Amino acid sequence: MTEPTQEMGDMSIKDDKMEAVEEDDIVNPWEVATSSAKGVDYDKLIKRFGSTKIDDALLQRIEKLTGKPVHHLLRRGKFFSQRDMHMILDLYEQKKPFYLYTGRGPSSDSMHMGHLIPFIFTKWLQDTFDVPLVIQLTDDEKYLWKDLTLEQANHMAFENAKDIIACGFDIEKTFIFSDLDFISNSPAFYRNMCRVQKLVTYNQVKGIFGFGDSDCIGKISFPAIQASPSFSSSFPEIFNGRSDIPCLIPCAIDQDPYFRMTRDVAPRMNHLKPALIHSTFFPALQGAQTKMSASDSSSSIFVTDSDKQIKDKINKYAFSGGGATVEEHKEKGGNCDVDVAFQYLTFFMEDDDRLEEIKKTYSSGELLTGFLKKELIEILQKLVGEHRQRRADLTDDVVRQFMTPRKLKYDFPPPTPPSDKKKKKKQKNSKAV
Amino acid sequence: MTEPTQEMGDMSIKDDKMEAVEEDDIVNPWEVATSSAKGVDYDKLIKRFGSTKIDDALLQRIEKLTGKPVHHLLRRGKFFSQRDMHMILDLYEQKKPFYLYTGRGPSSDSMHMGHLIPFIFTKWLQDTFDVPLVIQLTDDEKYLWKDLTLEQANHMAFENAKDIIACGFDIEKTFIFSDLDFISNSPAFYRNMCRVQKLVTYNQVKGIFGFGDSDCIGKISFPAIQASPSFSSSFPEIFNGRSDIPCLIPCAIDQDPYFRMTRDVAPRMNHLKPALIHSTFFPALQGAQTKMSASDSSSSIFVTDSDKQIKDKINKYAFSGGGATVEEHKEKGGNCDVDVAFQYLTFFMEDDDRLEEIKKTYSSGELLTGFLKKELIEILQKLVGEHRQRRADLTDDVVRQFMTPRKLKYDFPPPTPPSDKKKKKKQKNSKAV
Repeated sequence: MTEPTQEMGDMSIKDDKMEAVEEDDIVNPWEVATSSAKGVDYDKLIKRFGSTKIDDALLQRIEKLTGKPVHHLLRRGKFFSQRDMHMILDLYEQKKPFYLYTGRGPSSDSMHMGHLIPFIFTKWLQDTFDVPLVIQLTDDEKYLWKDLTLEQANHMAFENAKDIIACGFDIEKTFIFSDLDFISNSPAFYRNMCRVQKLVTYNQVKGIFGFGDSDCIGKISFPAIQASPSFSSSFPEIFNGRSDIPCLIPCAIDQDPYFRMTRDVAPRMNHLKPALIHSTFFPALQGAQTKMSASDSSSSIFVTDSDKQIKDKINKYAFSGGGATVEEHKEKGGNCDVDVAFQYLTFFMEDDDRLEEIKKTYSSGELLTGFLKKELIEILQKLVGEHRQRRADLTDDVVRQFMTPRKLKYDFPPPTPPSDKKKKKKQKNSKAV
Repeated sequence: MTEPTQEMGDMSIKDDKMEAVEEDDIVNPWEVATSSAKGVDYDKLIKRFGSTKIDDALLQRIEKLTGKPVHHLLRRGKFFSQRDMHMILDLYEQKKPFYLYTGRGPSSDSMHMGHLIPFIFTKWLQDTFDVPLVIQLTDDEKYLWKDLTLEQANHMAFENAKDIIACGFDIEKTFIFSDLDFISNSPAFYRNMCRVQKLVTYNQVKGIFGFGDSDCIGKISFPAIQASPSFSSSFPEIFNGRSDIPCLIPCAIDQDPYFRMTRDVAPRMNHLKPALIHSTFFPALQGAQTKMSASDSSSSIFVTDSDKQIKDKINKYAFSGGGATVEEHKEKGGNCDVDVAFQYLTFFMEDDDRLEEIKKTYSSGELLTGFLKKELIEILQKLVGEHRQRRADLTDDVVRQFMTPRKLKYDFPPPTPPSDKKKKKKQKNSKAV
């Protein structure tokens, strides 16, 4: 395992919720805020979280091993940080299995473009490495944190599953589950939850997530639920009872606290630490100071938006880095670093040369904001249109199929008795978990 | 509902774990200790817990309604405290349904006589009132609190189920479940767990159970698991989806903190508060200062003990209230209040007249300790012998049948739409739970 930066040993890490010391960036699963128009300082975040920056050597290794160019989200630093990615590549090189795990907290009936980023990238990972994928919908989390009934949260999970499937995931390689439905139907998953709950103290979740004494006990024990899909033994239907299949988690960096905790408890459960690959945040139309909000329809483009809505929102709300007047723009040029339309292009325009040209001509003042926005509108209309069509083509039956615990197309030989014995011996020597 | 003593409104009750103020009695689910040889001061406990003493009027009402004498455990004050028992009797009088819920934390492969008391009494309640019974085996709790693996705790639950069934429960009226097995197979139960977890804060469980910041998050959220069987909606197989069937919980008084918490959250879940009937503690052979311990075989008579073991243990360990010598005994008489063999007789000898005679002759010094013990030994040998036989006759198949979620012999008409609508309206006006 490659882990150049130091791993916290006892989870006595700094409190991410409370602290806003150096640059006022707040990054935790429930809040992302920065005072900089350029967005969160990701280099500082890497240092604070103790992860590793994705460097050229890693990108080159991926390209060499897979024989194809890396995804533009990786190439352009949208996925910028990682833990144990070289371990995953070692496995791939040795033709050994691993699996992908990502998730979503369903918060409204439809998803916005920011929500799609991890899924677009996860689909690329699945296509490229040809591995099983599990997707957790934390309807229980949304129930606990929001003023929702269980039924409402569970319904949102089902609706969001449609949006996720419409990203193009392969039904033979993908299992999607709602916590509320799956936990109460999966003894293996529930037992891993209990194991994590035994190994993590209130003090630790207080330190990691900033929970307080007035928080409900559901919130306090929830991190064990997000940790559990990191262990292949949670999915006996997929992994045939194997507990030794490593996991790679693509997610936005704000989810890292869950997995720092998971990586800390994993060895004590005789399980492997999950590897991670972290994305930056997708900016709101109004600018990079905030993460997009599913509850504010003007802050984002939704996958259900019509062509007209996309056009109107981009033209009306997308924060411009251009000059106040055409004259001023031509004279001083546009500022790509803060221009939201340009930022969106870096996420969605696949053509590197065209993007470079836009950057050059917009910065020089030659390309006007209206034209830049027009280019983005066309790309988003196509992308959302295709997504909308795939979603419309989906039947509830197919969604239910994706959400049924089952064997995927991969065969895993059952765990071998010798390693079992070894494990039992190991457990005997340590505390019961 | 009859609730003469004041109900805590906000769970800001005194901390039962910390406090040992007045008389040094410590009573909570994990510890019972007193410095008095006569045992815990139960009148003070009633005051502290805010429950109601069982009085003659209640006993007479039960006898009048059921047309038979009350159980000797009730008659002799072994069940001494209650909450809402008159509400339960009102229902019985109106021929309306209710159900029984009790449980056990499986802590070793076999149970001792103290463990049997609530089950002996629960069987009497079931026979007398002819109602469904659910029995929770908290193997998850034992896993969290003890140095056990999940597999060990789960195995103990199965073994303990045999001891419980051997008390004579009717398979058509009784559902026994292990938390580890049932929660991960029951969406309705799990959802009630989540509802309770949303309504109870860390501060509250800290106050009620004395949890600390170094406790694992599994312990902190566990009370929701013991609360959930109090709601009939947790068992759709038995109650046909009905959430309005009231619950009566027979249990030892040390479990009351769980149900004070449950009674506090119930109205906020649009559920009924469970009623309770509390027992005193069964003394250890060495005396009433401590509760019997399943992990100390000399402290108790186990349901698996042979006739010889019973005889030897009673003769060797049962703390005597008799005189040091025959002469002294004849002169001063025996002290029934501290004599463990006599105390055991009050639990197990059904014949009131004979018990009274023993009390009289032992107190006067006429009856010697050896004869008193002999009487107890005979009763216990018979009781344990019958239990041992019933246990030996049990097949694993029958145990599994008891432990299968299923309809019992009782029919419950499905919930009616009007009351559903009313409930939905009610929920709309309150916070989502």
